[in-house]
Amino acid sequence: MTDEAYMHMALGLAQKGCGRVNPNPMVGAVIVKDGRIIGQGHHQQYGGLHAERNALASCSESPQGAELFVTLEPCCHWGKTPPCTDAILESGIRRVVIGSADPNPLVAGKGVRTLREHGIAVTENVLRGECDRQNEVFLYFIQKKVPFVVLKYAMTMDGKIAAASGLSKWITGEEARKRVHQDRNRYAAVLVGAGTVLADDPQLTCRLPEGKNPARIICDTHLRTPLTAQVVATAKETRTILATCCAESDLQQPYLAAGCQVLVLPERDGRVNLRALMQELGRQELDSVLLEGGAALNWSALQSGIVNKVQAYIAPKLFGGAAAKNPVGGCGVQSPQAAFQLSEPSVERLGSDLLLESQVISCSQES
Amino acid sequence: MTDEAYMHMALGLAQKGCGRVNPNPMVGAVIVKDGRIIGQGHHQQYGGLHAERNALASCSESPQGAELFVTLEPCCHWGKTPPCTDAILESGIRRVVIGSADPNPLVAGKGVRTLREHGIAVTENVLRGECDRQNEVFLYFIQKKVPFVVLKYAMTMDGKIAAASGLSKWITGEEARKRVHQDRNRYAAVLVGAGTVLADDPQLTCRLPEGKNPARIICDTHLRTPLTAQVVATAKETRTILATCCAESDLQQPYLAAGCQVLVLPERDGRVNLRALMQELGRQELDSVLLEGGAALNWSALQSGIVNKVQAYIAPKLFGGAAAKNPVGGCGVQSPQAAFQLSEPSVERLGSDLLLESQVISCSQES
Repeated sequence: MTDEAYMHMALGLAQKGCGRVNPNPMVGAVIVKDGRIIGQGHHQQYGGLHAERNALASCSESPQGAELFVTLEPCCHWGKTPPCTDAILESGIRRVVIGSADPNPLVAGKGVRTLREHGIAVTENVLRGECDRQNEVFLYFIQKKVPFVVLKYAMTMDGKIAAASGLSKWITGEEARKRVHQDRNRYAAVLVGAGTVLADDPQLTCRLPEGKNPARIICDTHLRTPLTAQVVATAKETRTILATCCAESDLQQPYLAAGCQVLVLPERDGRVNLRALMQELGRQELDSVLLEGGAALNWSALQSGIVNKVQAYIAPKLFGGAAAKNPVGGCGVQSPQAAFQLSEPSVERLGSDLLLESQVISCSQES
Repeated sequence: MTDEAYMHMALGLAQKGCGRVNPNPMVGAVIVKDGRIIGQGHHQQYGGLHAERNALASCSESPQGAELFVTLEPCCHWGKTPPCTDAILESGIRRVVIGSADPNPLVAGKGVRTLREHGIAVTENVLRGECDRQNEVFLYFIQKKVPFVVLKYAMTMDGKIAAASGLSKWITGEEARKRVHQDRNRYAAVLVGAGTVLADDPQLTCRLPEGKNPARIICDTHLRTPLTAQVVATAKETRTILATCCAESDLQQPYLAAGCQVLVLPERDGRVNLRALMQELGRQELDSVLLEGGAALNWSALQSGIVNKVQAYIAPKLFGGAAAKNPVGGCGVQSPQAAFQLSEPSVERLGSDLLLESQVISCSQES
């Protein structure tokens, strides 16, 4: 088997940590000796052992003289666990093959250097693109200290997120909706506006068997969220954060009593300043946000420059309706030249629906 | 080479007739003897020789004992040219391989029967799907006698066909726009509303070097199209049809003098009855219409049940804007269950843009 084939296997192991390791990276490791796989491991949960140590612990024979394939550069610093480079050196492994470099300033090439200084052969950048994609959240958060934001919406092929009546259940089919729940498991938080809570009273939980519920963030400038809303009523079981400009403690009190966290933030154009919100969420170690907002919140988020990625689910149907809602509202850009530019979308089929995913590559010139 | 490989070659030849044979089918033919290709031909223009006769005429040696691969069942009736089955029988060809069956009531299996009755081996349905797709316009028109209608629009990834200001140049890139011109060459006519003429004063011509201009149909209930509009000013070079409910000959006169054709049609909901328009276009042998309308006309067309196919060009950008226009307007369906259902879209990349194509598989329950 090639280096790439083992790295591919390590990527598969890493994925098992999805939703459980944030704000740490997903990491997988495979140990190979004389062409035999003798150990495998992944980073299983935040605070737990790193993939390299789990793989070493799993070895069916001595790793002396073996090769280690790992999706991310091994750490060389003390965090919640001791440096992985120490464990590698002690193990007698002779070669280390790495996918992504770790931009964490505490690592950033020092892991590789430490290994080489001790006579270990190191090959870098194997399946680098795939490894970087798997950890796009980690690679962003470790550098920017604000969450990676994914703007997600489901629309018809004529760009409607609801029929003219406002009804929107359902636009996409089961497979697409299941994928949204996988993303709620994957990302640390989900963000909606108070309007969505008032209109739909959603739970915003992850409905997969082993899924992790994201923190639920309600952007609620004037604290309009009903105390009877599901996100408030279940705040003691699943974290709920109200992001507001309302500083009156009398108004905050009932939400606090219900178990919600209330973040008071500065205002921008009469709404919660989303950049300030992201900074606060970053301080709270929330590394990623799935933005499931309505048209107005989506526009505010784009305008604020906080959106990293766009996920457009497209269903093969047409609603029509000049008054039917679209995914992004607000005042919009004034000319096509001022558009928010996205990268060429990847296209995935989910049942009859399509999922288009793009990175946001430039902001509006007017923002 | 396999039957499929020769049929694939015949499909390529057939395509050369694109835009030149309507309302006839595109047909390609390859003649093979002892594994050598000895003749090739296609239906080159409306009224010209059929593919089989062109292929026979091109033979580099006697077709006695050869095989003929043809994308459509050979005709057995006198049309503008004599029956192809006669030519095949005279040629001494021993086997005929066919892609699509010809649903033309004058053929419809009789071509195959005639050949078999004369001792020729016939294999049907080779690459049938591809052959049928290539002639979807012909196969529809020959049976329904109304044009095959393709609803085409270009939108951003948030479903906008213009920025909030109304500006729409350009949403997609060059490759996508070139594709539109290929379709103007391919389809017999292009249809827009008077609003589009008033707003953009388009030429609606095909700007490919060897391209054929489609007939230009302006849906103009009250004859609002300016006499100075490009479509009127050039009506003597390129066919322009005004579809109107206005029966006053005084108002029609200047358009007629400019070389336009004026079709007076019944009204439906205060607009031109599009079903009646399609019947009239069918009578005029226009087999296909590329609908490049604005949001209101697109909705009327869907509601009228005249749309066969949807082409959505999607550009990787976002405009936002609650007031920005969407591809399909009107009153829209009232619930997601009442949506116009489309087939799973095919996806094609054109530069950075995507082209999604779907068949309309069911109309709104409300229409």
